[in-house]
Amino acid sequence: MAPHPYDVFAGVEDLVPAGVADHLRAVDLVDHHVHGHYNAALDRREFEDALNEGSTNPVPPHISMFESPLGVSIRRWCAPMLGLEPLASAEAYWEARSSFDAWSLARTLVGSAGVDTWVVDTGFVGDVLATPQQLAAAGGGRSVEIVRLETLLEGLVTRGVGADELAEAFRAELRGLPAEVVGAKTVAAYRCGLDIDWSRPTDDDVRASAARLHDEGGKPRLTDPVLIAFAVHEALACELPLQVHIGFGDRDLELDRADPLHLVPLLRDAPGHVPVMLLHCYPYHRQAGYLAQAFDQVHFDVGLAVNFLGAASSRLIAEAMELAPFAKQLYSSDAFGLPELHVLGSILWRRGMGLTLGEWVRRGDWAESDARDAVDLIARSNAERVYRLT
Amino acid sequence: MAPHPYDVFAGVEDLVPAGVADHLRAVDLVDHHVHGHYNAALDRREFEDALNEGSTNPVPPHISMFESPLGVSIRRWCAPMLGLEPLASAEAYWEARSSFDAWSLARTLVGSAGVDTWVVDTGFVGDVLATPQQLAAAGGGRSVEIVRLETLLEGLVTRGVGADELAEAFRAELRGLPAEVVGAKTVAAYRCGLDIDWSRPTDDDVRASAARLHDEGGKPRLTDPVLIAFAVHEALACELPLQVHIGFGDRDLELDRADPLHLVPLLRDAPGHVPVMLLHCYPYHRQAGYLAQAFDQVHFDVGLAVNFLGAASSRLIAEAMELAPFAKQLYSSDAFGLPELHVLGSILWRRGMGLTLGEWVRRGDWAESDARDAVDLIARSNAERVYRLT
Amino acid sequence: MAPHPYDVFAGVEDLVPAGVADHLRAVDLVDHHVHGHYNAALDRREFEDALNEGSTNPVPPHISMFESPLGVSIRRWCAPMLGLEPLASAEAYWEARSSFDAWSLARTLVGSAGVDTWVVDTGFVGDVLATPQQLAAAGGGRSVEIVRLETLLEGLVTRGVGADELAEAFRAELRGLPAEVVGAKTVAAYRCGLDIDWSRPTDDDVRASAARLHDEGGKPRLTDPVLIAFAVHEALACELPLQVHIGFGDRDLELDRADPLHLVPLLRDAPGHVPVMLLHCYPYHRQAGYLAQAFDQVHFDVGLAVNFLGAASSRLIAEAMELAPFAKQLYSSDAFGLPELHVLGSILWRRGMGLTLGEWVRRGDWAESDARDAVDLIARSNAERVYRLT
Repeated sequence: MAPHPYDVFAGVEDLVPAGVADHLRAVDLVDHHVHGHYNAALDRREFEDALNEGSTNPVPPHISMFESPLGVSIRRWCAPMLGLEPLASAEAYWEARSSFDAWSLARTLVGSAGVDTWVVDTGFVGDVLATPQQLAAAGGGRSVEIVRLETLLEGLVTRGVGADELAEAFRAELRGLPAEVVGAKTVAAYRCGLDIDWSRPTDDDVRASAARLHDEGGKPRLTDPVLIAFAVHEALACELPLQVHIGFGDRDLELDRADPLHLVPLLRDAPGHVPVMLLHCYPYHRQAGYLAQAFDQVHFDVGLAVNFLGAASSRLIAEAMELAPFAKQLYSSDAFGLPELHVLGSILWRRGMGLTLGEWVRRGDWAESDARDAVDLIARSNAERVYRLT
Repeated sequence: MAPHPYDVFAGVEDLVPAGVADHLRAVDLVDHHVHGHYNAALDRREFEDALNEGSTNPVPPHISMFESPLGVSIRRWCAPMLGLEPLASAEAYWEARSSFDAWSLARTLVGSAGVDTWVVDTGFVGDVLATPQQLAAAGGGRSVEIVRLETLLEGLVTRGVGADELAEAFRAELRGLPAEVVGAKTVAAYRCGLDIDWSRPTDDDVRASAARLHDEGGKPRLTDPVLIAFAVHEALACELPLQVHIGFGDRDLELDRADPLHLVPLLRDAPGHVPVMLLHCYPYHRQAGYLAQAFDQVHFDVGLAVNFLGAASSRLIAEAMELAPFAKQLYSSDAFGLPELHVLGSILWRRGMGLTLGEWVRRGDWAESDARDAVDLIARSNAERVYRLT
Repeated sequence: MAPHPYDVFAGVEDLVPAGVADHLRAVDLVDHHVHGHYNAALDRREFEDALNEGSTNPVPPHISMFESPLGVSIRRWCAPMLGLEPLASAEAYWEARSSFDAWSLARTLVGSAGVDTWVVDTGFVGDVLATPQQLAAAGGGRSVEIVRLETLLEGLVTRGVGADELAEAFRAELRGLPAEVVGAKTVAAYRCGLDIDWSRPTDDDVRASAARLHDEGGKPRLTDPVLIAFAVHEALACELPLQVHIGFGDRDLELDRADPLHLVPLLRDAPGHVPVMLLHCYPYHRQAGYLAQAFDQVHFDVGLAVNFLGAASSRLIAEAMELAPFAKQLYSSDAFGLPELHVLGSILWRRGMGLTLGEWVRRGDWAESDARDAVDLIARSNAERVYRLT
């Protein structure tokens, strides 16, 4: 990897022992949950809207979305990559950014993330985003893919698979996934909430629900908890590592129905050797850490929120280090669209881990080697293990 | 404003850069959710009971409520305003306090808060408390008012408005509010919980519920979720900025039914341009920050808890800065009765903001101007905007 | 007490004023919720399994449970007590530990906790654990006991008490408890969840539920919410201080059904003068602090989690100091089996309290005497009061 065009420990050098800092500067990450960057230029309205996970602009018209934790952090860390001073004004940032075409911007930002493996979720508005191959070209390293279970099942319905054949066709689909697919993801939290009956549906149950879905006509949208539970159980039966959207997301979500504790019946029932990855988790990251501690197969990350919390993300990263064994946490940016997010996630995570572990090392609570070992697990080894990235 | 008789950054001068500290020392606040101070002297039992939000005394008889986070902070910050050393003993504090009459005490304490606009909730035991005019006289600046929806509706029933006329009479009431009323508040959390059916009731629904309320006789107490949902929807339809009690309150409350996530169906349904202010929010302030980030009209504060957490409030204030755009948070003390609470809320908020933003500025995460801008929004500009305080 | 073979403020001396540090080093604790240590040697697999509260091993086979917050803290603090350097390797630790017999190990570790009163829960797998007398012999000081309500009731059924006699027999049992029993505990959270109907059952209700329990045959396992509510109400009626398992525990638990807010109907109904102690509470410790502030009889601790969070426990301890009056919090280790846990709980609590209170004293928020008084209450006086340990 090229040296990073920034020092993630600028301003906190005295808080992070050199052995910890150097290790965190150098480690290549596996970003285990990420989307492509935009492959076309944006206007400023589109850019500001993209700074808000909720997809609408929650601030009044006269206030810029730059006036948010994420906005300040982009000015702090990404401005220097565009040739500006850290914390250059929003106007200067926008002007400098506008001088790049989409590809150069992606090369400059995504390429500075220090990520060598991108585990890409291709299930959502994939056509305005870089493909996994394009992302890997911009960012360096390689890409693998995660298939979205709801999209897969909707695709079968769209292609005319009847209610009687749906269960078997879905199983065939899972068995025939291409080699670059290393896992599956469910967005049950967006579709029906996680507080559903997680018992395994029979093929007859699937038939009845699928018939209703067909009757609705039009472009199918999967919200039936029976079909979603079916898809999840089938993925686990195929030993596909399973990602589950948890917590923080956009306003389509009912946040309390995205609490990971709703998954306990599924986790008790599921095979203990098929990894389950709880994504994002904020503000339920302590609950996620508990589940990762209690259940053999559970892992978690605090992606997305790390970016959106900006300078405050170091406390979130510290809280994520509270309970779970170090083998149970993974790194992700959950970057979507803006290439700023691909690199910022990496910077804030390295900085936050350095502040958290650095304090413990300085105080004698941990050895430097403990810190390096935990970093290696979370930065990449755990992801390599659960997705079998050899 | 007169200079404050304390330095909010005493003991932490080296942690808060001067440009941030001076700005936080000087900014005049809008206290957007506050009650009057007591307008008569208290005995010590009454004083100690007032130190507990729960309205009963939760500590054993031989222990003083001074032995609480709030109690220590009053000794720390208010003792010097009464001519004592910081952290003077509880006995010395009580003795000095007793030498003031209610009005002098209010002038001394409320008048040191550095607040120039008091947005006063007059809906609860208003007769033992200073009026908004008296509060503004003691504290300096001006006052405006918030009308409590449940009180307004109960008042109509008490005045003999029949079930058939209640809906229309309530609408007339809202249309005829005096100019000093800048918003409405609901205490649904205390009356029926927030986990109700938030769909908009018809006038027929209101009639049926009102008939039941009349049948109960006596002084009416509004707990019917249909009538409460009606009142809330009517206030929003009148474009009245809406305050909602969330989280921490006294023991009448079921705390989990005061989680702001229960409001999602209402927020989706409500007009996006009428501001909704989530009050207090602890320990659901992260959920509140999420809603403020996701929904155009949602704002929040962490008042009340700032006072009750005392020295620990700086972490709460930091957590409140995690996710929401800076245009979506407001300052409040939620002081009630004790004039100590009117000034302490201001001191602890300034100190907590200084520690939070000061760390980020020292580390280079934020520019000083970013800190000043965020302070101005939260301290007053957001309140001026949502309540149209021109 | 013998001087501790460690300094709990090593590495943080400059953060904790001497007057606070010395007091925290010296205070003898009442460990108000603890179990016996193992009275036989373990093999390494058993030891590593015991490092996980969930009772299974949640990490992959090639990773040691030492790679967890708890594991690092054991190497940090217990290694020196076994003659090793702080943070000696896991292998060296295991080797040194293996050279001790169970009794010597207990004497060495438990005996260094600085606890002079052990309030022992004897209700769970008591036969592989030291008795309260053995624990007191190893640890120094004295022991008293907590009876587990579910175990008591199951014992009556096992001994053949019929459904008609069960209610009265249980009351007789409670009235006849030996003098060393100072309180009762319910594990309702494990048996039926805390979200049950907490109204007081009649003897007829008990009869009907008991008949069903008898019909099940075999070794009875009490999960019926009617019988559990009955047992709890009877204990309160006998004025037995009541411990309630809350929050963090093993995977048998549904964590969200162990939220203390489910207890509100019981707390409103219960006699205000019989102490209720909420145990563990993580990650619901803020909710527990709220209840301790709002309800006269409610107390809480953050035991168990303090050990499992390791170096991160100082933030948990700080959060536990947010809202509750100081008379409402207690110290516990909730150590079970591994004698490391009996001493580590004490060390981490002293260190965490020193960091929390030390910061406030350094900043002038608290006086040193405030810190010492709060420590005395939480370390021992509150436990002496609620359990009448005279």
